[in-house]
Amino acid sequence: MLRLYDYLPSGNGYKVRLLLTQLGIRFERVDLDIYQGATRTPEFLAKNPNGRIPTVELADGVFLAESNAIMFYFADGTPFFPTERLERAQVMQWLFFEQYSHEPNIATVRAWMHSQMTSEREAQVPAKRTLGYAALDVMERHLAGRRFFVGERFSIADIALYAYTHVADEGGWLERVRSQPNYIPITQS
Amino acid sequence: MLRLYDYLPSGNGYKVRLLLTQLGIRFERVDLDIYQGATRTPEFLAKNPNGRIPTVELADGVFLAESNAIMFYFADGTPFFPTERLERAQVMQWLFFEQYSHEPNIATVRAWMHSQMTSEREAQVPAKRTLGYAALDVMERHLAGRRFFVGERFSIADIALYAYTHVADEGGWLERVRSQPNYIPITQS
Repeated sequence: MLRLYDYLPSGNGYKVRLLLTQLGIRFERVDLDIYQGATRTPEFLAKNPNGRIPTVELADGVFLAESNAIMFYFADGTPFFPTERLERAQVMQWLFFEQYSHEPNIATVRAWMHSQMTSEREAQVPAKRTLGYAALDVMERHLAGRRFFVGERFSIADIALYAYTHVADEGGWLERVRSQPNYIPITQS
Repeated sequence: MLRLYDYLPSGNGYKVRLLLTQLGIRFERVDLDIYQGATRTPEFLAKNPNGRIPTVELADGVFLAESNAIMFYFADGTPFFPTERLERAQVMQWLFFEQYSHEPNIATVRAWMHSQMTSEREAQVPAKRTLGYAALDVMERHLAGRRFFVGERFSIADIALYAYTHVADEGGWLERVRSQPNYIPITQS
């Protein structure tokens, strides 16, 4: 069976869990406590040299990392990834936006709050908050008059951006994602 | 003609320039000085609400942003993007690695050096240096015994990672990218 190396509170892990559940693909989870160094052991670094979850084991010794790349692997050829060329690139645009402009600000501050807030981190919070709100603002403007991020259809762009957007009200969009069939909340595997 | 909103010293802009040149696709560049606020004007924000270059205008009023999404748009269906399912996801894995683990550390510190080094930024440099070296280490280990990042073939994964990797010697890989037909250096348009 497909094996997912995961950490339950992780939004990046949640993306993969949510997509696989939507697709009806069964998987087993291996929970690694990222705050106890479980992703930095020689054993795990042999699976993903970048030492991060989520990582999936597709077959014996074949591993794939990066939440959005894992989603692309499973979503392409399904209704969760478009077939039209421009829309395919637009989904990718939002996935890269999520990893560059959204996650490092919104998710990172959330993770610091829940783990260890050092004075060095504390000093970065105001700047990250500003960038985080700017990212939410870009999303909110894009969603004005749209139901989903690309092609008026629920795709992995919505899953990626939903995962860490529990901090702000994006019009009715959070509710539309929540009401999808086979929806699971972040702490349910 | 295809229009590329760009800033010549930007590695993210360079990725798109290099790929388009490799593909023989003609384009015109509009240079925007990101340090003078040229990407934060109402006029440019109407093109890319996230206020960043590179952004391409594909047709009248159709804009696409995020360097790696732009590369995916032009590379899919060409030799610069694989056809095999796992290799396609592996290219994506490296593109997300580049934007999350590589660019925010290596490119950002380089940009700060060339623009404005504030005391708040200065305090972040040691941590970013550590993460930057860790990213280069992940690349170096992956390239041990390989010629290119995915499928032993020059792809947009190599272009993405090459763009900001001017700071370290990755075995013979820098030279192999440099020796590709129709190669252009970073400051040539």
